[in-house]
Amino acid sequence: MTLEAQIGKYALLLASLTDEELAFLKPSFHKIRYCQGKVGSMNMQKVIAAVETAAKRNELILDNCYRETHALYHAVLEGIEGVTRGQPSIGEMSRTVGLRFAIVRGRPYAEESEGEWIAVAFYGTIGAPIKGLEHETAGLGINHI
Amino acid sequence: MTLEAQIGKYALLLASLTDEELAFLKPSFHKIRYCQGKVGSMNMQKVIAAVETAAKRNELILDNCYRETHALYHAVLEGIEGVTRGQPSIGEMSRTVGLRFAIVRGRPYAEESEGEWIAVAFYGTIGAPIKGLEHETAGLGINHI
Amino acid sequence: MTLEAQIGKYALLLASLTDEELAFLKPSFHKIRYCQGKVGSMNMQKVIAAVETAAKRNELILDNCYRETHALYHAVLEGIEGVTRGQPSIGEMSRTVGLRFAIVRGRPYAEESEGEWIAVAFYGTIGAPIKGLEHETAGLGINHI
Amino acid sequence: MTLEAQIGKYALLLASLTDEELAFLKPSFHKIRYCQGKVGSMNMQKVIAAVETAAKRNELILDNCYRETHALYHAVLEGIEGVTRGQPSIGEMSRTVGLRFAIVRGRPYAEESEGEWIAVAFYGTIGAPIKGLEHETAGLGINHI
Amino acid sequence: MTLEAQIGKYALLLASLTDEELAFLKPSFHKIRYCQGKVGSMNMQKVIAAVETAAKRNELILDNCYRETHALYHAVLEGIEGVTRGQPSIGEMSRTVGLRFAIVRGRPYAEESEGEWIAVAFYGTIGAPIKGLEHETAGLGINHI
Amino acid sequence: MTLEAQIGKYALLLASLTDEELAFLKPSFHKIRYCQGKVGSMNMQKVIAAVETAAKRNELILDNCYRETHALYHAVLEGIEGVTRGQPSIGEMSRTVGLRFAIVRGRPYAEESEGEWIAVAFYGTIGAPIKGLEHETAGLGINHI
Repeated sequence: MTLEAQIGKYALLLASLTDEELAFLKPSFHKIRYCQGKVGSMNMQKVIAAVETAAKRNELILDNCYRETHALYHAVLEGIEGVTRGQPSIGEMSRTVGLRFAIVRGRPYAEESEGEWIAVAFYGTIGAPIKGLEHETAGLGINHI
Repeated sequence: MTLEAQIGKYALLLASLTDEELAFLKPSFHKIRYCQGKVGSMNMQKVIAAVETAAKRNELILDNCYRETHALYHAVLEGIEGVTRGQPSIGEMSRTVGLRFAIVRGRPYAEESEGEWIAVAFYGTIGAPIKGLEHETAGLGINHI
Repeated sequence: MTLEAQIGKYALLLASLTDEELAFLKPSFHKIRYCQGKVGSMNMQKVIAAVETAAKRNELILDNCYRETHALYHAVLEGIEGVTRGQPSIGEMSRTVGLRFAIVRGRPYAEESEGEWIAVAFYGTIGAPIKGLEHETAGLGINHI
Repeated sequence: MTLEAQIGKYALLLASLTDEELAFLKPSFHKIRYCQGKVGSMNMQKVIAAVETAAKRNELILDNCYRETHALYHAVLEGIEGVTRGQPSIGEMSRTVGLRFAIVRGRPYAEESEGEWIAVAFYGTIGAPIKGLEHETAGLGINHI
Repeated sequence: MTLEAQIGKYALLLASLTDEELAFLKPSFHKIRYCQGKVGSMNMQKVIAAVETAAKRNELILDNCYRETHALYHAVLEGIEGVTRGQPSIGEMSRTVGLRFAIVRGRPYAEESEGEWIAVAFYGTIGAPIKGLEHETAGLGINHI
Repeated sequence: MTLEAQIGKYALLLASLTDEELAFLKPSFHKIRYCQGKVGSMNMQKVIAAVETAAKRNELILDNCYRETHALYHAVLEGIEGVTRGQPSIGEMSRTVGLRFAIVRGRPYAEESEGEWIAVAFYGTIGAPIKGLEHETAGLGINHI
């Protein structure tokens, strides 16, 4: 297996860079499909729903296919582990997140048989539910689809 | 508090972009201090040691100051949560990592009183201890110092 | 200590087999006390309450005895670890469970002095809160009582 | 999606029932592929390796395909969460496991498009590294493949 | 670094001893600043808020300083890990806490450069949401500030 | 159930106070059985073994009784959760502990039927494997026996 297309790196950049910054790097994005979104919440369920809705609306996963929903869900949970670093909860831990996210679907491996994979990246802030009492956070989840 | 300098984003970019890609963005790095490094291991202790050694060698933390070692250590652990997504172990879970990392120290907030903070980012691969059986991974930890 | 009566296996079978399938194996259940139940929820508290209520109603634990409630509670939590595999939450993680459960109380060890133990097994589905987007799950917790 | 073939339940039964007990239920196993194995260790890496080796030797996953190794690996980790209930380590926690395991590959859903899934079940004992100081344990992991 | 003033031990004693018992030991408290409080809840957010409010009201942390709020927050979370032992949630796990807590701020190390640290200790009961079905619990978190 | 004898508090005090400090409080210890010990290690298995050995040598648990070993083991693990706050490992996380511990066995509840319980408390330091780079830590586990 040879890792060829870095869908995880692309997802991280799509979630964290400004459009201006992305302009320099965008050309290499022609081999993948992706979408971007935003969500701010103290409720983890809303964060997960925002990613799933974006993925379906942008046809990155098939709406009626549990297999693809399952692959995305676990990629989202893994990204959330990075965002929350230890306790995958936000409101209950008295904290809130303001996140940009990106979902990338593509073929990271040179071998045709490795098929498609999905990457979900988060970048934004986590902190107390008071404006400004927050620092940056990020997370990346990857799964075969 | 106003988040001004995105030390976490800088750390993620320093860990994941090539020198060529970084060239476009580097100018904004003049307000921060940083270093980069690499580590590949099945042993978490080696990953932690690699970051701590790089931080001390590059004078990002004071060698004799527990306070700063403690701040860095927790930032490293938080980054590792993102890398390992759920079980902060590698060898015992029969997996290995090949990581680039970056440590950034700076003043992310406009207010002088918020002082210095440290960000530790990891980007690379995680997978079975067999070449190629791996996918991308990333993590980010941030702490006041 | 000699493990003689497999109360954990019995609990798993009581939670996962149909009555028809159980008919073949039931004879060996004469040395233990057990009950079965069902619960579907996005709320972990309801799952725990369903098991505790069933245990008390069927007199598998003494209603007024904290000692026995405590033993059951930890067996339930351990079973939930298996059901949720990593993050012991359901609704907050945007997922729902439909579970059958069984509680078995008995003497698993040949030695009289090892006393009674309790086993709690779950079997059913976990998935998105949309009918059909789910897969199987199971968990087993065991404690001395 | 309609859950039709309970590969998770089959895996649990294959891991926990004796051959005699299985004889009653075996007929329904004609639509799936499976293998069984055994492993006893204080070293989690050996437990994971035992399942992976069995899966490859019995051609339940393709030897050269990272995609399939990745699917199996996460199913194994999820099964281990059930076995270890909270801290996915054994030797470091001063405990040992004696496990039978089963791997089942099949099509659990009526819809052709849901494709193949893999289930890994463990059943056996966990306890102090002294013969007899142990109780039963079980775990089940399921993934799309 | 020489650990001189045991702010963690002081916090544990302030959280667990009666005023009478504390009278014997209080003299050594002259080098530190501290406050005590109480909270009973099934809601983790209320536990965290009670400690943060007490810390601000007693001027143990600066109200407008994210840096200090961040230091306290992580000390609180670490204390909660001790209280909840494995799953940092209470209501969702169908349990309630009745806690006394103490926050201590001081200079634990002989070296001036190690600066101030903060300790948060909890002591009380955790159990089913029924009076009396509970046992003791404790937790301690420490951070540089 | 009425919590009468605070075995957890006693265990915390026995683990954290000096003999001199304990002298003031000792009189209330006549209703319980207890022992104290010390362990310093980067190896969690040694920490667990130190407590188990002390418990058996001081006849706080029956040597040949799995039931009692099991009760103690889970109390120890819960105490370790407090000590390690999130990741129950030490050496792998590049840290070491120097701990005093106490084991208390007694009847915490007024009701005879609630029987005996066991408390395990740890108090000491955790930190980098370099003398002085460490801060205080504590943990408490309680179980019915």
